[in-house]
Formats: sequence, structure tokens, C-alpha cells
Amino acid sequence: MSVSVVRPEALREWVGAGALSLVHPLRALRGGVRRLSLGAMTATLASWNDGAAMQAIMEFVERATSEVPVEDRVAVFDNDGTLWCEKPMPIQADFVLRRLFEMADADPGLRDRQPWKAAYERDYAWLGRVMAEHYAGDDTNVRTLLGGVLAAYAGISVDEFEAKSDTFLRTVQHPTLGRSYLTCVYTPMIELLGYLQVNGFSNYIASGGGRDFMRPISQEVYDIPRERVIGSASTLEYASDDRGGTITHKPEADYLDDGPQKPVRIWSRTGRRPLLAGGNSNGDIPMLEFTRHHDKPFLRLLVLHDDVDREFDYTGGAEQALQQADTDGWTVVSIKNDWATVFPS
Amino acid sequence: MSVSVVRPEALREWVGAGALSLVHPLRALRGGVRRLSLGAMTATLASWNDGAAMQAIMEFVERATSEVPVEDRVAVFDNDGTLWCEKPMPIQADFVLRRLFEMADADPGLRDRQPWKAAYERDYAWLGRVMAEHYAGDDTNVRTLLGGVLAAYAGISVDEFEAKSDTFLRTVQHPTLGRSYLTCVYTPMIELLGYLQVNGFSNYIASGGGRDFMRPISQEVYDIPRERVIGSASTLEYASDDRGGTITHKPEADYLDDGPQKPVRIWSRTGRRPLLAGGNSNGDIPMLEFTRHHDKPFLRLLVLHDDVDREFDYTGGAEQALQQADTDGWTVVSIKNDWATVFPS
Repeated sequence: MSVSVVRPEALREWVGAGALSLVHPLRALRGGVRRLSLGAMTATLASWNDGAAMQAIMEFVERATSEVPVEDRVAVFDNDGTLWCEKPMPIQADFVLRRLFEMADADPGLRDRQPWKAAYERDYAWLGRVMAEHYAGDDTNVRTLLGGVLAAYAGISVDEFEAKSDTFLRTVQHPTLGRSYLTCVYTPMIELLGYLQVNGFSNYIASGGGRDFMRPISQEVYDIPRERVIGSASTLEYASDDRGGTITHKPEADYLDDGPQKPVRIWSRTGRRPLLAGGNSNGDIPMLEFTRHHDKPFLRLLVLHDDVDREFDYTGGAEQALQQADTDGWTVVSIKNDWATVFPS
Repeated sequence: MSVSVVRPEALREWVGAGALSLVHPLRALRGGVRRLSLGAMTATLASWNDGAAMQAIMEFVERATSEVPVEDRVAVFDNDGTLWCEKPMPIQADFVLRRLFEMADADPGLRDRQPWKAAYERDYAWLGRVMAEHYAGDDTNVRTLLGGVLAAYAGISVDEFEAKSDTFLRTVQHPTLGRSYLTCVYTPMIELLGYLQVNGFSNYIASGGGRDFMRPISQEVYDIPRERVIGSASTLEYASDDRGGTITHKPEADYLDDGPQKPVRIWSRTGRRPLLAGGNSNGDIPMLEFTRHHDKPFLRLLVLHDDVDREFDYTGGAEQALQQADTDGWTVVSIKNDWATVFPS
């Protein structure tokens, strides 16, 4: 399973030597920097080609910094397909499938039941069909899949779950890109996060993926502290004990942070309507719509995956979003044309 | 209903002139201070008597600042009875009863149904019985009450709700203390929040009261930004429109942030186990238990209402918490003995 471990040294190479001299304004306040904070060091948009998207970003930031108080400068980003690669399958899907495989390996009785059967037989076609059915409006098998996913972590403490996610993300390679998962983040988006941050923005991750899956690496990879990670969540349960109590995952979803739940969860967590939102699929439409003001500047970014050479080329699951970008004036970010670099070298 | 409006000028008088020269370290980063930030200016514990509680706080903060990185310095506080007065009834109960009265006034058909009947007839005895039944384990009438409370704001947008809460809190007087609700906060706790903040802590409100009820005033009164207010919440619903979409309250509870839900909600929002927790009742027990580490300093504060002259004298609803404070070494804060001043003058 494990091929290479991502070391801080490797991550540091992502940024040019010149950018390293930039000091994040909050840095001086901290008692010490325990983790590598990547975004804060890349306060330029060096990996963006000079085009309409980059111009829109710079004009927006210029207006926001002069017109909007710091506390209202909130930016929200989808994660899968927006900040990091989501093909051939979302990184968390790989994480879950390995867990389902592990369970079926230990318990032969599970091997005839979905979704363990598909995981054990590596039947990715079944998983593809489930998603195709979902897009066609039939969620029968989605419920089967979700039931398995929730059962996979039932009774695990939040600390154990994070340790599993942390280890997975730091050790596993992407199946086709020849790089570790942690280096499947998009360099231009890391730069954008840093650029926003040095301009007083608070960046949040508003992902359909699991909140607790992303938290262990969000600070290091995105310079987004764990309290600013919004994502889907299992129902959690607290049990008292003599070590300060334990919080465990229950086998039921609390909420799926996708579609109309995204603005609800953003508002619940931040109490604010964002100034900037970045997404890439139909599930991001309500979040992008919600990022609109009558008295403040705002920017909606939609990442278009059109680069078969450097990443992937697909519009599946983003058809409506692309249409709405056109009618509503969202800024489409073409990976092929707007990004000089896609991934950290 | 309205007697006096709390002006920033009045709030400013709470703090001594000397304290005003203290500049909050984050202040310099902000584009401008739009609101009066009270906590940040009161970085002393001047309203605390020198006793065991004050000593415990100072020793804890000294250890925390030298041993714990800034990002892990999280403090959580219950609100009703911990940061502001909760007698003769929680401030939000007054808010809700006025709304129920208003509804029954407009619709005579509601006047025979609980909880509108009690609100319309100002039958506080019924409400008292509901709470007594609740403590005795019978929640039949609690459900009736909660149903009414949720119906009271069904379909209202989050912006409208906040405007109502904001107006209420800034205009209504406490029924017996001869002061406006916004000045029913405890001066020593405001000082504690400021003291923690200048020492690198992030303060959160973890209240059984409504998150959206407290948010409009949390920055001004506690210097706690709205994204750090954790509290009970209605289920919210997003609807698309051509003005950026609207989020409205549905007539169903999302969760009640009390008892074992407090650690769950704290963890969900912050992703961290707090170093300091302050509470005053049995509903705070799990949050206080959760504030425990094997490798870091921690402090649990329990406010004891024992001052009939300056505030109220009661232990109802706090019996188990007081017992556990004794067995588990929580620091009891006696209003009578530990606080030189209770309310802002």
C-alpha cells in the first residue's frame, strides 16, 4: 500500500525560494510554528497564467481589501476536484475501499454483501454504476454504499479515525499520477489560498468529503486550521470515562455537505455569507449562488477539468454548473489555459 | 417593552480608563474596528478577589502559555448562568415568550393551546412546572414547549431572526435587576475572556441557548466572533433565488447543545479538546469532563450562584455538577466570595 511518505522537506520544495521570505502576518503572534504552513508562504499567483481568471481574482481581492472589513472576508472552497484531484476516484473513496477490503478480508461473511463485495473483488465497475444510477436519480445502491461506509467506522473514536486518515494521506500514492496523494493538490489553488490569507481572508474548506478525513492535514497542506474545515460528518456520540471522555463515530450520517447543505453548513459554521467561493461540480452550485452580495464585491470560481495531459479531462457531474457559470457570470478556471503549473514538482 | 438602548459609549464605561490603552494583538491586522471589542480591552482580572479561583486561573494561564502552542489554546464557556445572568428565566426564554405572546395576540385560536396559552396569560407557573417535570424525567410538556418555540420562528430567514434577536437584546430591560439585558453579563467573566485572549486563547461560547440568538452581540459583548459561537440550532433550509439564496429556520430542532452534546458540538466545530471550560449547571458536566488532558494543563470552572444581594442564590439544576466539582477537583467560582464586582456599573 505504502510507497512514499511525504516529508515536510518535500512540501517545502513546492514553493520558490523567493516566496519563502514572505512572513504571514499572524505568524508573529504564534507561540511557535509547529507545522509547515504552506499557503502562507506562497502569496503570489506565480503558477497562474495571466488571463481572465487571474485578472478577476486580483481585481476582486483589490476591491475586497479596500471595501470589506477583515472579519467579513470569508472564502470557501470545495475540496475534491477544486483544491486537489478527484480522479479516477475521490481520494477518500480509496481510503474507504481499503477499509472495506480489510473488513472483508477479516470476515469472509462480508464478501458476498455490497459494498464489501465490490471492495474485496476490486469491482470498480459496480461503484461506477452506483454513481451513474445516482446521477440518474436512483439512490437505492447509494444507500447500500453509504451504509457500508458508515459501518466501516462505527464505534471508532475520533482520535483513531484521524490517525487512520493521517497515515493514509501521508503514505499512499495516487493510482495513475505517479505522485503521493498529499502532492495531488493544485499548486495554483494553494497559491490562491495564500494570496487570500495575506490579504486578510479566512479560508474555509466546504467539502462534500468528510470533515474528519481532511482535518489532520488541512493546516499543513492548505494552511487552513482544523476549525475551518467544514465537510460531511457522521453522527458522533460522547461517552464519559475517567480519561476525559471519548467521542466515537456512530454508523449514521449526520449530514452530507453537498448541494443545498453547503450554504446551510457554511452559514452554521461561520455565521457569514462568503465573498469568494470555489467549486467544480453541480454539488457546488448552491454554495456558488450563496456567494453573492448587493453591497460588497464577490467572486465565484468554477474549476474546469480540461487538461488530459497534466490532470484529467471531464465535465461529468459539472454540466449544470458550467451552464450556470455562463448565465450567472461565474469565473471559469481552465486548468489547461489558466494554470502554468498544476501540481507541486 | 423597550426601556433603554445600550450604546457603545455605555459599554465602554464598563472598563477602567487604564485598561483602554491595551491593544489587542489582532487589532493591528484588522482593516478597522467597526465594533467595540470589550474583552480585548480588559486584560486584567481587576474584578476578581484574590482567592483560590483567581490563583487557579493565573497559574493555569501561565502554564498554558509556556507549554501549549497557540492553536491548541481553546477555551469554551457556557453562556446562561456562566457569562450572563439566567434568572428569573434565561434571557432567550423572555425573547421567545414575547414572540409567542405576539402570535397569540394576532391569532386568538392559539390562546387555548400551550405554550401560547401560558405566554399569553403570562402563566410563568406553567413554565416552571414544565422545567420541574423535565428535571423529574418527564418531558411530555417540554416537547409541547419546544414545539411552540420552533413554530415561533418557522420560515423566518436567518437574517430576520438575527435582526429580531439583536433588537431584543439591545432594547429590553432585565425584569428585576434594573439594568438592560446586555449589561447582565458578568464583569469578571468578561475580564477572564480578555485575559485568555491576550494570552493567545481562542474563546468559544458553548451554550445550550440558541447559536443564532447570541451571534449578533457576541463580538461586541464578549469579543467572541460569530464563527466561535456554538449553541443549539434549528434545522435550516436553503432555497435558491436571484438574490444569492435564502436560508430559513425550519420548525424542527437540529440539536440541543446540552449535556453530552456539548463535547460533541465542541469537537465538531473546533476539532480540539479544550484546555479550559467554564459552566454552571448539570448540563455542563460532560463539557467540563471533556476538558482534560494527560499531557497539557487544563482548568474546569464552575460558577456558583450564592449571592442573593448582588445576583441570585440557587443551586437548582447544578446539584450533580457541584458534587462532581468536589470529587473531580473542578474550581468552584463563588460569586459572593470571588467576585469584587458582578455586573458592569
